[in-house]
Amino acid sequence: MTENKLCPRLAKAMELLGKRWTILIIHQLLEGTKRFNEIESALPISGRLLSERLKELEKEGIVERKVHAESAVRIEYTLTEKGQSLMNTIQEIEKWSQTWL
Amino acid sequence: MTENKLCPRLAKAMELLGKRWTILIIHQLLEGTKRFNEIESALPISGRLLSERLKELEKEGIVERKVHAESAVRIEYTLTEKGQSLMNTIQEIEKWSQTWL
Repeated sequence: MTENKLCPRLAKAMELLGKRWTILIIHQLLEGTKRFNEIESALPISGRLLSERLKELEKEGIVERKVHAESAVRIEYTLTEKGQSLMNTIQEIEKWSQTWL
Repeated sequence: MTENKLCPRLAKAMELLGKRWTILIIHQLLEGTKRFNEIESALPISGRLLSERLKELEKEGIVERKVHAESAVRIEYTLTEKGQSLMNTIQEIEKWSQTWL
């Protein structure tokens, strides 16, 4: 732990990760690349809010959006390395919640 | 990681820990027992909001509030075992933020 002073990085991380649904969306994508509808049906979240969160995560470099031009356009979301590296954090939150909540 | 299904515990954990300032307050208390003023001066947070967050954390069993009746009343805040066990989580968030933010 750091000395008794401000932790701007921790504050910034929590501003990002503390937003409603963000960790749950990342948790979904830790299972692998998914389409928008797959994430939407896995979480009780509106399509509009999911779209907003995915855009934020893309902007932060945590999620990558890939468009595949096939017969119909397919859009997939994948975690970047930055996003993938949240696995330990999420596992720790899960461990804690399984013990204490 | 769990199967593609709802994670109510993870959702509940994030509802609790995702609130603005909560992780930073716990981070302060991981350094040891502190008085209200010590936490207040370490974080750019209003006394009113700090008081609100400490009450929530007390209610959730994460923080313990101790009143010492001396010449003047002294009130101290300490992490419970439930609160202390968030250390790994916070360390993981710190590690991630130090690498990526």
